[in-house]
Amino acid sequence: MSWEENVRKVIPYTPGEQPKEQNIIKLNTNENPYEPAPGVRKMLAETDFADRLRKYPDPAATNLVKAISKAYNMPEDQIFVGVGSDDVLAMSYLAFFNSEKPVLFPDITYSFYDVWAEEFRVPYKTIPLDENFELDIDGFLQENGGVIIPNPNAPTGVLETIENMEKIVKNNPDSVVIIDEAYVDFGGVSALPLVEKYENLLVVQTFSKSRSMAGSRIGFAFGSKKLIKYLMDVKYSFNSYTMDQITIELGAAALADKAYFEETCSKIVETREWSKEQFIKLGFKFADSKSNFVFVTHETKAAKDIFEALKKQGIFVRYFNRPRIDNYLRITIGTRQEMEALFAFLKEYLG
Amino acid sequence: MSWEENVRKVIPYTPGEQPKEQNIIKLNTNENPYEPAPGVRKMLAETDFADRLRKYPDPAATNLVKAISKAYNMPEDQIFVGVGSDDVLAMSYLAFFNSEKPVLFPDITYSFYDVWAEEFRVPYKTIPLDENFELDIDGFLQENGGVIIPNPNAPTGVLETIENMEKIVKNNPDSVVIIDEAYVDFGGVSALPLVEKYENLLVVQTFSKSRSMAGSRIGFAFGSKKLIKYLMDVKYSFNSYTMDQITIELGAAALADKAYFEETCSKIVETREWSKEQFIKLGFKFADSKSNFVFVTHETKAAKDIFEALKKQGIFVRYFNRPRIDNYLRITIGTRQEMEALFAFLKEYLG
Repeated sequence: MSWEENVRKVIPYTPGEQPKEQNIIKLNTNENPYEPAPGVRKMLAETDFADRLRKYPDPAATNLVKAISKAYNMPEDQIFVGVGSDDVLAMSYLAFFNSEKPVLFPDITYSFYDVWAEEFRVPYKTIPLDENFELDIDGFLQENGGVIIPNPNAPTGVLETIENMEKIVKNNPDSVVIIDEAYVDFGGVSALPLVEKYENLLVVQTFSKSRSMAGSRIGFAFGSKKLIKYLMDVKYSFNSYTMDQITIELGAAALADKAYFEETCSKIVETREWSKEQFIKLGFKFADSKSNFVFVTHETKAAKDIFEALKKQGIFVRYFNRPRIDNYLRITIGTRQEMEALFAFLKEYLG
Repeated sequence: MSWEENVRKVIPYTPGEQPKEQNIIKLNTNENPYEPAPGVRKMLAETDFADRLRKYPDPAATNLVKAISKAYNMPEDQIFVGVGSDDVLAMSYLAFFNSEKPVLFPDITYSFYDVWAEEFRVPYKTIPLDENFELDIDGFLQENGGVIIPNPNAPTGVLETIENMEKIVKNNPDSVVIIDEAYVDFGGVSALPLVEKYENLLVVQTFSKSRSMAGSRIGFAFGSKKLIKYLMDVKYSFNSYTMDQITIELGAAALADKAYFEETCSKIVETREWSKEQFIKLGFKFADSKSNFVFVTHETKAAKDIFEALKKQGIFVRYFNRPRIDNYLRITIGTRQEMEALFAFLKEYLG
């Protein structure tokens, strides 16, 4: 007998590399190539945060919640915030997925979903995507202890219709259905309006992609009052103060600038659509992406070889050594200039 | 049947009030009355954080871990960091307290310990303090699934000898023993040197009290390589990036200034010792505190009445409506000036 016997042993999620070298082109973790809204810089410059840090932050992160409430026109008591959407989702697993029945999610999806299930000892079952990486909607209507689906899906970028998402929510009244909308701002349709209709729906979003604030760790969720209250209780039973003083204020500042948000999202969508054309010219195939990345496979060259060749050039993309997707690369949409550098190299490399 | 049946229902921890009024004297949440080290302000002023925020933070928080390693002379792979010591402790419960046997902690202690046990469905048993609020050391030598003890204890402020703490660690080789040293820098003796000797010991500390950075949410822990590796796996199965870009750098900056740290801790200890004399003059009793608060009871006046009278004056202290301690107040040591205002009012009120 030893203390080690009582340890929860898990195989953790592996995040994308965060290389420390300068002068690289980083297209591997779906970060935004543009700075956060100018109000963030202004808030940092004009606020005496050093003086405030000695006090605990507001545990309810009220200023941030108020800003989200205003930006999304949702009541404050239907909003939850966390340290990135990963924190929101982990807390949601803890709060809502406590059945003996399996939680359902797609077989090709955000690779944290099964990690959380393993961490919290939640049974789960994956529902295979079809060969075009489309969701099997009926698969999510079988008996379950919860459902989690990203829309658009990752790492495929494929968007499901809001009608199909509603079908899943509506037909699972005995489970909480989580729609993970990390990438929705790049051309997706949010399920947010459904929150008023379905008490069992949680819609999760993040500041990490469309709001250029991955470094701040801000995730948020919308749900019925009841759902949010349960989630809050679990959060307050884990850590009273999850979000720090500075982040609360910077998050609120970012939300205030709707024009900047729309402008940078549009630029990324534009670069994505242009990039799709270049990928086709170079012999790549991909499902149509509505996110800030494209999930591509090449007709002749192995994904792993391309991945390694790019890395040697200081261009980082994401390769998953997993069944069904081990010949694909997930390539984040950077600036037009970054994408041009990518295509210049690929042209030479593949030509 | 409804989705609500599968919800984890918990009664959350209640943090101390964070009143939004200005011009109050806040002695209710054990915050430090002095600003963080001047290097924190300098780092905020001189770093272009806005530009960095679009990228994910370093998931390993390397700069902060290196700074802790240097300040405490411990190898980097024996250090864990989290979003406040609450995050470190919650992750530790998840990682280490997985037995059918009860986790042991004092009956009067940090009121989050039973909340985490309830949240994670861990059996627990409280070991009563004696009437002087001293630990029952032998009580912690019975069969258990883990041990957690704060030293100094909260809300009593009482310090246990390092010999007794070692006795508990040594005689529990089949359990992880967590020593929560949130208040150790105000006159306690850290169990850190024992980490080299006992593989089952985790020593947890925080930036929230002695380093004046409650608003940043930084907790850290020391343990054997094996222990830290297990804890990391659980953390990476929960949230890859728990600590934001700015906090990592500010934390590292705070640690660099040893002189400021020692100076502010000394000032608080000095004010505490002076405050003890004033409390005695006013008819208060208390166990000897080695923390940045004093846990007092008055010989004639009810704690709850004093609490409410103080609050009306804009002086916030902490009152716990709990068995055995419902006639006590936990009063944080503020600046000398703040304490003088407290005693001026108490003198009039009690006189």
